[in-house]
Amino acid sequence: MAAAAPPPPPSDVPEPCMAPPETTPIGHPVFTRIRLATPLDVPFIHKLIHQMAVFEKLTHLFSATESSLASTLFLSPPFQSFTIFLLEVSSSPIPPLLSTPPSFTPIEKTFNFDLPLDDPEKDAFSVHYGNDQVVIAGFVLFFPNYSTFLGKPGFYVEDLFVRECYRRKGFGKMLLSAVAKQAVKMGYGRVEWVVLDWNVNAIKFYEQMGAQVLPEWRICRLTGDSLQAYQNANV
Amino acid sequence: MAAAAPPPPPSDVPEPCMAPPETTPIGHPVFTRIRLATPLDVPFIHKLIHQMAVFEKLTHLFSATESSLASTLFLSPPFQSFTIFLLEVSSSPIPPLLSTPPSFTPIEKTFNFDLPLDDPEKDAFSVHYGNDQVVIAGFVLFFPNYSTFLGKPGFYVEDLFVRECYRRKGFGKMLLSAVAKQAVKMGYGRVEWVVLDWNVNAIKFYEQMGAQVLPEWRICRLTGDSLQAYQNANV
Repeated sequence: MAAAAPPPPPSDVPEPCMAPPETTPIGHPVFTRIRLATPLDVPFIHKLIHQMAVFEKLTHLFSATESSLASTLFLSPPFQSFTIFLLEVSSSPIPPLLSTPPSFTPIEKTFNFDLPLDDPEKDAFSVHYGNDQVVIAGFVLFFPNYSTFLGKPGFYVEDLFVRECYRRKGFGKMLLSAVAKQAVKMGYGRVEWVVLDWNVNAIKFYEQMGAQVLPEWRICRLTGDSLQAYQNANV
Repeated sequence: MAAAAPPPPPSDVPEPCMAPPETTPIGHPVFTRIRLATPLDVPFIHKLIHQMAVFEKLTHLFSATESSLASTLFLSPPFQSFTIFLLEVSSSPIPPLLSTPPSFTPIEKTFNFDLPLDDPEKDAFSVHYGNDQVVIAGFVLFFPNYSTFLGKPGFYVEDLFVRECYRRKGFGKMLLSAVAKQAVKMGYGRVEWVVLDWNVNAIKFYEQMGAQVLPEWRICRLTGDSLQAYQNANV
């Protein structure tokens, strides 16, 4: 999308402060873009992950720092290892990126909502492109996994998160769909992630997106002291 | 371990065809080595995965070919993406590898069993090192995953498989422990895998190894036509 000025309002836009007649909804355009995160985005990513931990009431398990993220992410080209898509939103058209890796063309979509989006944390999540300002609304972190039965890779989605004021608008679906689309593009066989069994709304949402929930598999996790015990193990 | 000749039998070995007295178990040494798989091992890997599909009664889901494995594995240095450890066994000391990547030193261990191991498929799984022959007994396939809460990578174990005649001897534990040890060495935070909820023996085995089974998480999978539908999705 070109960095054009926003389109002129339709001629039937009422004067400011006049409530529009109910039969003539004018809407509020929201311009969105999914792009690859870069090392410059680490402070945003750290804040988003922390918000996710607060939302999940799991801050006691949260020990990531900007430094730990910076030293472990972005070490490989996109899609070959840990990869993050960020969702940017703006009430104005979003200017094009100056450079993008050839492996991914940013995905742009314009929504039209009845009400404007009110973001109380706008300043903390703003990215500036020249004089333009866009806001980071969410992210998805994923990486390749492998199916030996298929004999081909897939993607595993570790985190999908949309900030509170941007929820229930289709943005989560947009981020997850972008991962699925990329998987198809790369000839991959699966996209997988996990959900809590009591989160019926999430399960319904995922099933509507075409996913199956596998009832019998359970995750095993070796971590903390139990993992460290293997340091000198005579395996 | 040097490619030495096997140690001479103890002097009290009975003549062939004489059952040893019960108070003097002499045992049968089994030499084992865990090493990184290479592209030359693809035919073994394909056969091992197929045996796993047969064991799990999931051959209808098995579509991997030697070609699909060869084109998707071994594209990155060990541990950075999909990585396979193979377990080699022999009744004689295993000769050293001519070259090994600096990232992993093969793990060797000698067992002593009451009975000799009888492998009806020995020929199909033999590797020749000069005049020496060892047999591939099992494998583990794993790759990095990522915990945003920890802000660091871990390993996800996709498959752990030991051929039937080598089971219940500690080889599965040896392979999984090798992955855990490598995770600790790399400063990783977790090792994870999945288990079927009705497989109580496996769950008990994993818990004895220090793993927790997470009861609430379920796997969501988008695959087949449901995934292909995203090819042209307007996300």
